[in-house]
Amino acid sequence: MTEETCIALGDWGTSRLRLFLVKHAAIQDHLEGPGIGALVERPIDALRRSLAPWLKDTAITRVVLCGMAGSRNGLVEIPYLPAPAELHDWLRDQAQFSAHGLDVTIAPGVSGKNAWGAPDVMRGEETQIFGAMQAEPALARGRQLLVLPGTHSKWVHLDDGIIAGFTTFITGELFALLRNHSTLLRTGNSQEDAEGGFDAGLRRGQDCGTGLAAALFETRSAQILTGRSQGWGANFLSGLLIGAEVRAALERYPMDQSVTIIGDPQLTALYRHSLAPYCGSTHELDGDRCAIAGLQLLAQFSRQRPAI
Amino acid sequence: MTEETCIALGDWGTSRLRLFLVKHAAIQDHLEGPGIGALVERPIDALRRSLAPWLKDTAITRVVLCGMAGSRNGLVEIPYLPAPAELHDWLRDQAQFSAHGLDVTIAPGVSGKNAWGAPDVMRGEETQIFGAMQAEPALARGRQLLVLPGTHSKWVHLDDGIIAGFTTFITGELFALLRNHSTLLRTGNSQEDAEGGFDAGLRRGQDCGTGLAAALFETRSAQILTGRSQGWGANFLSGLLIGAEVRAALERYPMDQSVTIIGDPQLTALYRHSLAPYCGSTHELDGDRCAIAGLQLLAQFSRQRPAI
Repeated sequence: MTEETCIALGDWGTSRLRLFLVKHAAIQDHLEGPGIGALVERPIDALRRSLAPWLKDTAITRVVLCGMAGSRNGLVEIPYLPAPAELHDWLRDQAQFSAHGLDVTIAPGVSGKNAWGAPDVMRGEETQIFGAMQAEPALARGRQLLVLPGTHSKWVHLDDGIIAGFTTFITGELFALLRNHSTLLRTGNSQEDAEGGFDAGLRRGQDCGTGLAAALFETRSAQILTGRSQGWGANFLSGLLIGAEVRAALERYPMDQSVTIIGDPQLTALYRHSLAPYCGSTHELDGDRCAIAGLQLLAQFSRQRPAI
Repeated sequence: MTEETCIALGDWGTSRLRLFLVKHAAIQDHLEGPGIGALVERPIDALRRSLAPWLKDTAITRVVLCGMAGSRNGLVEIPYLPAPAELHDWLRDQAQFSAHGLDVTIAPGVSGKNAWGAPDVMRGEETQIFGAMQAEPALARGRQLLVLPGTHSKWVHLDDGIIAGFTTFITGELFALLRNHSTLLRTGNSQEDAEGGFDAGLRRGQDCGTGLAAALFETRSAQILTGRSQGWGANFLSGLLIGAEVRAALERYPMDQSVTIIGDPQLTALYRHSLAPYCGSTHELDGDRCAIAGLQLLAQFSRQRPAI
């Protein structure tokens, strides 16, 4: 068994840990582990356990993490970098430390004001954003609008490569809570016939005003009174939440030009479909690819100075 | 031990069963049991078990129920009475049957279109509404606007005592899901200092537009960035959801005159406070008192004809 020098990159969110093994500057393998929100042991022990399949025959010299790894419940709490946030400041503010034989680097999150002027935060998305600009340098020029859909969907303005401001919508978290724990999807037939649910929800989300809580109940009534299936209801719910988010974003962010959508390809496709009527064009980037590019930027920078 | 002839009245919702024992035309006792959504046995067995403390020394000649007792997962599924719904038709459509030695009467729910023209349903609130008109006959005259806050908050229009139309908001269910299962209240200090949270949420709910999912995330950011407590966050969340509901209702229902608020006194007080700036006056009625009055109407009517 030969030992090779490798770096592990990781995006550690609330609900899961995604790890990538980099050797000879290329991704060799990937693993999943528990999210920060689901840990039953100390974060450092969970990290070592998640890395274990690699550690037995690979010398991992550095672990570079973004996301909730730097939160109060993560490995070490790292202050947010306030927006407007520049790449150089973000790289400079990364935290480095040694723990249990691992040299760990953690990206800072970014804080700012949302489109309504209220405080807002991100941890992890900034890494995808700086990575996206690395992968697609045109994004670092002029004013750009990005959306990173997910548990906590982020709408982000870039000004010449600087994260100028952003707004978080808990669209994905709401969808998961309502699908798994609410009374909204308990009554319909569980068979097929989901056709059209997403688009019906999308239209309804556009015109719900502040009455989202009324539109949500229609998911249930449609199953009880008009024979819609649970599958239709789940799609209606998804369309409704995304439709309301897109409508609110439209009123706050000009979308006359292109919107870049970064995330899981299945989800970015839903947002592309939802945004199509409203913006000049959309452009999709794979979220993992952007996270890896951002984590590699951190790894390159951290090589330039010794660990503390 | 003397046996006396009694009637049990019950409001059987998704989350709980409220039972009232009527003897000599007065409420003698009350009990609680599991909601239809939490049953682990057949509904009829759960009902007998809940009534057991009374059954051992009281002859209960009739059990009169409203709410989810008449739903697909209840004792018997009873069709909805379509709005516009009149008292006489509602009394006529009640279901009566004998099961396991109990003579059971169940109120029908009401179906209709919400303020956006989509199908909507209620089960239980119609009983409180007909009961409210019995308790306060002025409600049965002219056009009246009622709100019945709760898990599924209902805004109801009455025209000369007829349920003309209504809209359901899942405000209470959303609040419970977000308080108990979301990431929104996990970061703040758990100590005191909840002051002002409700009113801050109320103001924010008024101007959130379709961006409720963004305003919700502010509950979390306020704890992370501005040191708000979990208690403040919970109150903010409550104010936000009620504020958005009230704003949406305001845009759909004219509130120039009095609004009648029916429900749990703690909750009706929150709605009174939230509605005060927008409507002529508010008038609060206790939800249990209205439910009992409505169930007694059903009991009187069902005495006039034999059980099927």
